[in-house]
Amino acid sequence: MSLQIPLDRESTTPLYQQIKQAFIEAIERGELPPLTRLPATRKLARQLGVNRVTVVTAYAELAAEGYISSHVGRGSYVLDRAERAAEHEWRSAPPSLRDPAEWTAHTFNREMLRLARRPDILSFAPGMPATDLLPVDAYRLALNKVLRRDGAEVLQYAPLEGYPPLHQAIVEELAAFGIRVEPEDLLVTSGAEQALALVLRTLLRPGDTMLIEHPTYMHVLDLLAGSGIHVQPVPLDEGGLQADKLPELVARHRPKLLYLTPTFQNPTGVCLDPDRARRLLTLAAENDIILLEDDVYRHLWFYRPPPPPLRALDPADNVIYINGYSKCLLPGARIGYLIPPRRFREALRAAHQTLDIAAGELHQRALALYFQEGGFGSHLRRLRQVYRQRLEAMLAALARYMPQGTRWTRPDGGLYIWLQLPRDGPGATTLYVHALELGVAFAPGHLFYLPGRAHPGSLAAHSLRLNFALHSPEAIEDGIRRLALAWCRAGGETAPGEGC
Amino acid sequence: MSLQIPLDRESTTPLYQQIKQAFIEAIERGELPPLTRLPATRKLARQLGVNRVTVVTAYAELAAEGYISSHVGRGSYVLDRAERAAEHEWRSAPPSLRDPAEWTAHTFNREMLRLARRPDILSFAPGMPATDLLPVDAYRLALNKVLRRDGAEVLQYAPLEGYPPLHQAIVEELAAFGIRVEPEDLLVTSGAEQALALVLRTLLRPGDTMLIEHPTYMHVLDLLAGSGIHVQPVPLDEGGLQADKLPELVARHRPKLLYLTPTFQNPTGVCLDPDRARRLLTLAAENDIILLEDDVYRHLWFYRPPPPPLRALDPADNVIYINGYSKCLLPGARIGYLIPPRRFREALRAAHQTLDIAAGELHQRALALYFQEGGFGSHLRRLRQVYRQRLEAMLAALARYMPQGTRWTRPDGGLYIWLQLPRDGPGATTLYVHALELGVAFAPGHLFYLPGRAHPGSLAAHSLRLNFALHSPEAIEDGIRRLALAWCRAGGETAPGEGC
Repeated sequence: MSLQIPLDRESTTPLYQQIKQAFIEAIERGELPPLTRLPATRKLARQLGVNRVTVVTAYAELAAEGYISSHVGRGSYVLDRAERAAEHEWRSAPPSLRDPAEWTAHTFNREMLRLARRPDILSFAPGMPATDLLPVDAYRLALNKVLRRDGAEVLQYAPLEGYPPLHQAIVEELAAFGIRVEPEDLLVTSGAEQALALVLRTLLRPGDTMLIEHPTYMHVLDLLAGSGIHVQPVPLDEGGLQADKLPELVARHRPKLLYLTPTFQNPTGVCLDPDRARRLLTLAAENDIILLEDDVYRHLWFYRPPPPPLRALDPADNVIYINGYSKCLLPGARIGYLIPPRRFREALRAAHQTLDIAAGELHQRALALYFQEGGFGSHLRRLRQVYRQRLEAMLAALARYMPQGTRWTRPDGGLYIWLQLPRDGPGATTLYVHALELGVAFAPGHLFYLPGRAHPGSLAAHSLRLNFALHSPEAIEDGIRRLALAWCRAGGETAPGEGC
Repeated sequence: MSLQIPLDRESTTPLYQQIKQAFIEAIERGELPPLTRLPATRKLARQLGVNRVTVVTAYAELAAEGYISSHVGRGSYVLDRAERAAEHEWRSAPPSLRDPAEWTAHTFNREMLRLARRPDILSFAPGMPATDLLPVDAYRLALNKVLRRDGAEVLQYAPLEGYPPLHQAIVEELAAFGIRVEPEDLLVTSGAEQALALVLRTLLRPGDTMLIEHPTYMHVLDLLAGSGIHVQPVPLDEGGLQADKLPELVARHRPKLLYLTPTFQNPTGVCLDPDRARRLLTLAAENDIILLEDDVYRHLWFYRPPPPPLRALDPADNVIYINGYSKCLLPGARIGYLIPPRRFREALRAAHQTLDIAAGELHQRALALYFQEGGFGSHLRRLRQVYRQRLEAMLAALARYMPQGTRWTRPDGGLYIWLQLPRDGPGATTLYVHALELGVAFAPGHLFYLPGRAHPGSLAAHSLRLNFALHSPEAIEDGIRRLALAWCRAGGETAPGEGC
């Protein structure tokens, strides 16, 4: 970096301001392009003949105004315009948005997207598949084939019901899961997300009660907030939902619906024990409880296929089944689907039609072609192999670095490890702030619990979710090492790999 | 066609059944591929040595079971599998779905999609742009550039707020309309459709009253059905909404919101008179009425740009502005947007986030690139030129063929002509059935009115919407000629070009 910084020692403008201004101008003129590393403060101070504090102050203001990123021990570099805008937005946001203890799913999502633009942050936070494994080349070919084959028709309004060959491909895949349905039983939605919102909005009324796993998928909590629907939590353990707690909850609350992710649950990664699944189905049939089964992690098994979905075991036609291709294939295609029990089919179809009048069909057609040409199988084989390595790397790093008394789940699939910190140490949101200083991010656990459950010493306050799928084994090891270091900095004791 | 039909005259199976069965088997085996024309009934009867009625009966059953399409004077041809499924679904649907008088926007949409698969039907019914003018090649290039430039990131989860360069492109276009906003004022939605649903759902509560133009966009009526929102109609004339009717309606009903399409209104094609626009804005400001401005036809002017949007004239920040790229560019990209007044921005943003947690960004990025590279301007120039020819062809054909006493609007842009049949003749739904027999379809007018308004002799029962943009001038002339003929067959008198 050959930036000239002419200092005017006679000026009334303080020297740190002059330095800061010189950097801003160089960045604005493009002389310091994004990702340019700034000189170490000590070195620049020597070079300019100023006190090191002067340079540190200039850098701190540049960071505060979003021009550069600075991290302890990792140097400073120039942010690009998008990063700068995100930083600026973040820094000018109300404190509630910046304090992780105050976050909801939405503010957390914003934070994740902010961090996604920051190459200096190793994030285990988001609920997304690894970008480096998305089959972008194969999909580009499929898009082009479809555009050439079908022409302008692909870009015209398309029926909301979805593209029949995609229905067919999904129906064939479902048969392999043990679910036998006809193409017309499917509602194709904009991601599993939309299917979920549709069911909750259509089948529940204010005053109704529903049960959720606890912890659960954070976005569901957001959907329910302010809806007037009463939410009763059911605890989880290594065998999934604690089914023995259900009879009493059912008798007391007469719930209309139970939302669960029986396979590689979000955030814990656990699977529902098959015995419990059977008991659950019986209980639901006897008490007329709709089971809303979210199965979006099913494809991501690494050792052996998971137990069948509840929908495949359900003679009473009581299970609403939701799945999609965002976690296992391409989030950006936004393709999910819903199989309603027959008695809700028309109501859900009608509700779907008031959300959207027509669909875009390009992604549906490209995905159908991609399935027909057999790309999905080899993609999944590769995904399973690489994710398994990443899972094992994270489990090994946790064992090596994390402090005594930390516990975590050991999933066979999915995307997440759920980690419980020692409850006499700093909580997850305190740890988050320190971890971010060291360039590491995760999802604080309270986001997966009902509001108000994260009092000091609680599980909600001392747990966190780690997405193990996003980085190489080396990066994972480095990230977990820094997480343990952050634990020490946050006031925790005895991180074994580091010695606080 | 060299199909052999071996007839067994000794069999107990009637001859017409044998003929029918022979055709079904040939179709199933692929010997008669889709679009194959069947021999004329007279010719086949002669060839087989059977009575012509026998062949007619066989063809009628084949049509009833969805194997072939038959139209008076236009012969019969084999349907493909998708057409057959659509035909079958239609024929097995309850009568309410088949009787146009019973249709709602949803059943009409299904009907339109069914017809879209039928190359023998010339449809003026759907609210879509012409497929032959969608810029599919330019857009394929943009998609490929984006996929190569940005890689897998394009197919990852993307922020719901939208892609900043697309915001920028939209903001620049809005400035040309006289609307000055910042990129962060925009909410990008899945079509203008989603924006509309979002506003109605978020800002209105059961018991609130809103005003609509009458007739109005049919999907809004569907969104409002069963919502508990009171809807008061305001009549339209050639100058748009009859603003002089408003003071009394406002005083009586205290509406919270008025939904309108001031520019090339759907279904009438009229524009709001600028004097009325000014009075409307004053009235809305004084009475604290939100104006919901749907501006999706703005780009489609053919002679001179339309008056500015209400949003550009509104000092009170009282107008919610909705627009998108489905009518003027690419329906399948599903890109619309919403500019809320500042006081509703956070509520609408939060509501948007409960509809969807993330967006797909491929279409947004491709569209932004397409805009940056200047493709939109030349596309619009071509669209305006071709649509103008089609509009003029339809106006000329209407003048030539339609019966005395028929009236229609003469729009300067948009997609639609609104036609009022003589009120002493058959109504629009009766006409529809006869027109379909002659291979022509349109949107019956009652769909654009509040339910229950289509009593005999009413405007609602005797009007219809024609999309003039979809076909060549020659096809338009032929279609309007057949429409007039259908009018005669339906019992109407004196179609000038035909002589009933």
